[in-house]
Amino acid sequence: MSELPEAWEARRTPPTLFRRFEFERYSGTRAFLDALAELAEQSGTHPQNISFGTTYVNVTLEAAGGGEPGEAELGLAARINALYKPVSA
Amino acid sequence: MSELPEAWEARRTPPTLFRRFEFERYSGTRAFLDALAELAEQSGTHPQNISFGTTYVNVTLEAAGGGEPGEAELGLAARINALYKPVSA
Repeated sequence: MSELPEAWEARRTPPTLFRRFEFERYSGTRAFLDALAELAEQSGTHPQNISFGTTYVNVTLEAAGGGEPGEAELGLAARINALYKPVSA
Repeated sequence: MSELPEAWEARRTPPTLFRRFEFERYSGTRAFLDALAELAEQSGTHPQNISFGTTYVNVTLEAAGGGEPGEAELGLAARINALYKPVSA
């Protein structure tokens, strides 16, 4: 597997990629969720799960076939990182 | 505590209200999430957690002070139910 994008964690059972994103306030959380939804719709690739509260968003990516996350998931993780603007949130 | 709105479950440790909403496809999920976000912003009350995938949304409500869910949470649960349109999703 290629290198993990910054701050992502490879988890087992089942194999997934996971990252927690934190925000100063809800407006930043909402903007990030909207950007994630746009990315999913544009790419046709949806995270397996997105779990959020007022100031955090946890994202879990799973390979489409259920096996090891591969280039597609690593690429999506990197694109999600690019949406994250914690300072201006 | 007043009666639980339809299909909500009272959970313990910590005390929360929980409901799972299911959708035929992502477009319905996305519309429901957008409506939930609007409701949260209008009411100034945010669910403790929202966890979703392509065709489901799990919503957890917690009392603001961390105690037993009360009228505010029951009212929010009922308003969330009113946003749910599973058939047209």
